[in-house]
Amino acid sequence: MNMDDLTTPALILDKSRLARNTAAMTEHVRGLGVDLRPHLKTAKSADVAALALAGNFGGITVATLQEAEYFFDNGITDMTYAACIVPSKLDRVAALNARGADLKLITDNAAVAAAIVSHEAGFKVLIEIDCGEHRTGVLPGGPQLLEIAAILDAAPTVELAGVLTHAGHSYAGRGIAAFEAVAEEERAAVVNAAERLRAANHPCATVSTGSTPCVLYARDLTGVTEVRPGVYMFGDMFHAGLGTRRVDEIAVSVLASVIAHREADNQLYIDAGGLALSKDRATGAFDGDADCGYGLICDAATCAPIPGLHIAAVHQEHGMVTAGAPLPFDRLPVGAKVRVLPNHVCMTAAAYDAYNVIEGDGKNEITTTWGRCNGW
Amino acid sequence: MNMDDLTTPALILDKSRLARNTAAMTEHVRGLGVDLRPHLKTAKSADVAALALAGNFGGITVATLQEAEYFFDNGITDMTYAACIVPSKLDRVAALNARGADLKLITDNAAVAAAIVSHEAGFKVLIEIDCGEHRTGVLPGGPQLLEIAAILDAAPTVELAGVLTHAGHSYAGRGIAAFEAVAEEERAAVVNAAERLRAANHPCATVSTGSTPCVLYARDLTGVTEVRPGVYMFGDMFHAGLGTRRVDEIAVSVLASVIAHREADNQLYIDAGGLALSKDRATGAFDGDADCGYGLICDAATCAPIPGLHIAAVHQEHGMVTAGAPLPFDRLPVGAKVRVLPNHVCMTAAAYDAYNVIEGDGKNEITTTWGRCNGW
Repeated sequence: MNMDDLTTPALILDKSRLARNTAAMTEHVRGLGVDLRPHLKTAKSADVAALALAGNFGGITVATLQEAEYFFDNGITDMTYAACIVPSKLDRVAALNARGADLKLITDNAAVAAAIVSHEAGFKVLIEIDCGEHRTGVLPGGPQLLEIAAILDAAPTVELAGVLTHAGHSYAGRGIAAFEAVAEEERAAVVNAAERLRAANHPCATVSTGSTPCVLYARDLTGVTEVRPGVYMFGDMFHAGLGTRRVDEIAVSVLASVIAHREADNQLYIDAGGLALSKDRATGAFDGDADCGYGLICDAATCAPIPGLHIAAVHQEHGMVTAGAPLPFDRLPVGAKVRVLPNHVCMTAAAYDAYNVIEGDGKNEITTTWGRCNGW
Repeated sequence: MNMDDLTTPALILDKSRLARNTAAMTEHVRGLGVDLRPHLKTAKSADVAALALAGNFGGITVATLQEAEYFFDNGITDMTYAACIVPSKLDRVAALNARGADLKLITDNAAVAAAIVSHEAGFKVLIEIDCGEHRTGVLPGGPQLLEIAAILDAAPTVELAGVLTHAGHSYAGRGIAAFEAVAEEERAAVVNAAERLRAANHPCATVSTGSTPCVLYARDLTGVTEVRPGVYMFGDMFHAGLGTRRVDEIAVSVLASVIAHREADNQLYIDAGGLALSKDRATGAFDGDADCGYGLICDAATCAPIPGLHIAAVHQEHGMVTAGAPLPFDRLPVGAKVRVLPNHVCMTAAAYDAYNVIEGDGKNEITTTWGRCNGW
């Protein structure tokens, strides 16, 4: 089967680009002297996980219990569920761990910690630290850290496994110096929290940081034991705008067909709209060409960008393409195919059940199909 | 099984609200003297289709070939695929029709019309008309209409089935007078196109209009034969803002758990983020409380809105809830459930494979589960 045979829109994964991205991150993190626990929330694929885990210790990060169960069924046991646990989900975690999984949990809440220690099953739990994103997590210097630690550490069935943080505010940074600064802020916060736990005679084996920009630009990870980047595997146009991934490194694209011309308005329409691309407007944070609307239009065969085109609007099944200069209607007749590089690949990929895998720029053959585990 | 037993986030469908919405539309369209060909792009469910079709002639509208195949497998034959066909999809259409489906196509392009008549299979085709949305479609008074009609009508294997339009610009209207005006613009355009075809001795049996606001507020549909609304079945917060659906009529919601408190910033987090809710910001078009961010927070049991709360930001698996006044943290402890009414239900529902069906406000029992056909 070839790309030409696919019904559009369809999700394409270039395994060659993916493999370069995963190998580069594995080497980079080895150089930092920490473990790489890749986050599979973006890929949601056991086949992608195999590449991301090559040369690493074998642990992963997940964002849903569905992912945890799927990856366990695909042979991965060491997992961290990096979203705050709630008591109603503990039974499902316990059932998975009873089957042999080693799924670790996070919390930032004393009442949840109390529910965890009250559960009949045992759990490994990390305390989430707020290193400056101000989303979830306790402050590294605040009283809640020790309060939660005391609850967890007192329970014979629970292992206080460490501390974990996510510097999501790295995405607001612009330029290498900004990423370096956030990476150090992240490191300092979580190491500070770890030191406070140890000073209070609590264990803290794991000290975990996240976010692709921080991992790429951290100069020093002293005190950190593992990192959890995820988007680096695929990259997207938001990362291209940040400078943390080149456009020709982006491994996932949406194959689409031109379905209509509106020459009088210098518009053409493709059959990839809000469902096929997502409505994520992350690149709206950038000026000029770095804002590609809802995705970057590329040549279907080579995946080379077609300069100047952007997707200005999406409806459910329609994407409206326009440009500052006259569109190349002759090059893109109705029925022609294009590839769209996504704004935010975590959102775009979630619309599809599977990746159609090609192996390199200019290759047309779908060499295999890799499943995804969507849902919760 | 009860709502309480679901892992959050989960998609909830209130069958009582749905049944009232579908019955009301069926009665309303009967009063207009036209056929109702409900658009199933929102619901993507054979069980929902059964309610929407009750009392109607049995034809539906679809937005993808996946939907066409799914609904045919569930016993529906009379379908219109209301997105511009491209030549590469004709084989798949032909295969479905060979199995017994009656899937009609649309085009606005002479080259595509030529490809259709060159295909070995026969097809029924409507010409798409631009009634003012300026998306796809030919102008009712322009030369392309007759050019395409001549190509299609000359082919013995092809039936020129009529004209179809979608007044998507109705969604830019505010107030009943605006919807009435767009509805008349839509009617006038498509009827004008039909009259031009007939004057040129072409057949034009079907004259089809769309969009929920236009159907709800059309005062006269003289010359129209069928209407294709879809979102009316469920409704959403965008339609609530438009005044085309009351909040207590919205039939689909996302059950979510409170996963964290950040009291110092008057924020709490739920486990419904960008994937569970979509990143659609349709309600951003409204002022004040009608802009609920990424969805309206409601009581989990009754689905009554909790006043003042809105979802100010979403990450992949996190939704950040805040309010102008202090949040009711005591009422919403970590672990508590809420229901979120979606901004744009077509986008939100697409993240789920199934509806968990309840039957009425305050009901907790999941009486059944209804599947969806996502993808292409």
